[in-house]
Amino acid sequence: MQLRGSVAAGIDNVQAAEAMAYVARHAGVTVPVLIEVDCGLRRAGVPRGPPVLKLAKQVARLSGLHLRGVFTHAGHAYAAQSPAAVARIGRAEGEVLVETAASAASSRHCVEIVSVGSTPTARYAGAVPGLTEFRPGNYVFYDRMQVALGAAQLEDCALTVLARVISRPDPGRLVIDAGSKTFALDRGAHGTDALAGFGQAPAQELVLERLSEEHGMLSRGVDPRSVELGDRLRFVPNHACTLANLAEMLLGVRGDRVTELLDVLVRGGGR
Amino acid sequence: MQLRGSVAAGIDNVQAAEAMAYVARHAGVTVPVLIEVDCGLRRAGVPRGPPVLKLAKQVARLSGLHLRGVFTHAGHAYAAQSPAAVARIGRAEGEVLVETAASAASSRHCVEIVSVGSTPTARYAGAVPGLTEFRPGNYVFYDRMQVALGAAQLEDCALTVLARVISRPDPGRLVIDAGSKTFALDRGAHGTDALAGFGQAPAQELVLERLSEEHGMLSRGVDPRSVELGDRLRFVPNHACTLANLAEMLLGVRGDRVTELLDVLVRGGGR
Repeated sequence: MQLRGSVAAGIDNVQAAEAMAYVARHAGVTVPVLIEVDCGLRRAGVPRGPPVLKLAKQVARLSGLHLRGVFTHAGHAYAAQSPAAVARIGRAEGEVLVETAASAASSRHCVEIVSVGSTPTARYAGAVPGLTEFRPGNYVFYDRMQVALGAAQLEDCALTVLARVISRPDPGRLVIDAGSKTFALDRGAHGTDALAGFGQAPAQELVLERLSEEHGMLSRGVDPRSVELGDRLRFVPNHACTLANLAEMLLGVRGDRVTELLDVLVRGGGR
Repeated sequence: MQLRGSVAAGIDNVQAAEAMAYVARHAGVTVPVLIEVDCGLRRAGVPRGPPVLKLAKQVARLSGLHLRGVFTHAGHAYAAQSPAAVARIGRAEGEVLVETAASAASSRHCVEIVSVGSTPTARYAGAVPGLTEFRPGNYVFYDRMQVALGAAQLEDCALTVLARVISRPDPGRLVIDAGSKTFALDRGAHGTDALAGFGQAPAQELVLERLSEEHGMLSRGVDPRSVELGDRLRFVPNHACTLANLAEMLLGVRGDRVTELLDVLVRGGGR
């Protein structure tokens, strides 16, 4: 499979397509669009089969838009109960989209882009012949959620939080200087609540149990001999995407050396 | 009660105080400090009574620090089951701190600042004689959490999210263009999970049920005749603090007119 990048607007509704075409014509541009197919997440998207063909026909008629293909996102894989279930959802994601693309092509619609995307399903959906693009995003960092889904190991997780123990009200209770404004409150993606706690510190085998906005609290399993006030603990977060979105800057580190400052752009709604 | 503002460092541990005093002496400055008293949240803070007096004595000896008083935060009010319980926690917050301040003063420690703070308890703690400061933060906006605690009415909530219906996969199911990167995932504060959903649109009597990062989903109670694709719905968020922290800018609105742009500073860890 040869992969290509592309930018296009997602469409799942003729009303939205008409409004977009109207604006495009007035601006004198042609907007590339992909039809979003719902492969099971039940978020946005058109059901596979006839509804896709019907919308493709309607969109193809609109000047101002250029229909380039179809896409889907198997976000329901985040609610899977086992790596086998992730694999099943991933294969279905690829197959549903390739079948949809084939029937659209046989109706003479342009389907040069056939695009799937989600990190846990990438290795399964991506193996289905006929796709031209996949869009896993989380894989850049991985996180505790991906580990729980079998998509990565803890040591693969590249984005961590270094937090300091700032209070120790009793020997078995720690407070760190990072809370929900650093870690976010995700315990899964797309509304799943799969994980216990909000991050884990593998070296000390500790789980971050409770978050206020600027404080994190730990008590279970704290060994008073292994952690001191002022120590820094390195946490693997539950969800790297929302965590990165909360930071103005990430530090690139090799060993103990900071080698890069990475600005986090396009967050906070922009201006 | 006359209220004054102040900036000081919180201290709940002699080790941290010694480290801070060391740095202050080397920088040639004196840092004003307050002792944090735990009035029930079980986060940071020293228990009331003898532990406070012991720490006050230790801190008073350290050159580089200037002990100015005591403070507490009754964050456990967010887990209260009724407005009466909020009132009880609020009164206790004020009384515990005033008693603590009185016994520290009788040991000749400086207690010119006696500071409580949390929005739900403000009216109760703030009524206890002997306090010099309170620090409610959320009251600037209020939110759905404060409404649930009886601290505000929905119409008092000043921070809202205007989101557009961007997809309508079937007549009773809506997708909006704002998800957890706009609303955050708070369903309470300090680890409480009191609220159902992630925000509500009072005009349409809808609750935001499920969030992906950039999408919000609603289905229960959607009246197909009252909401159209492209409509904008105004949501009262669960937690104004973490929501404001996710935005680069807030729009000040009077009626239908945008009258002000408010930059959100000091978020994302700063630089």
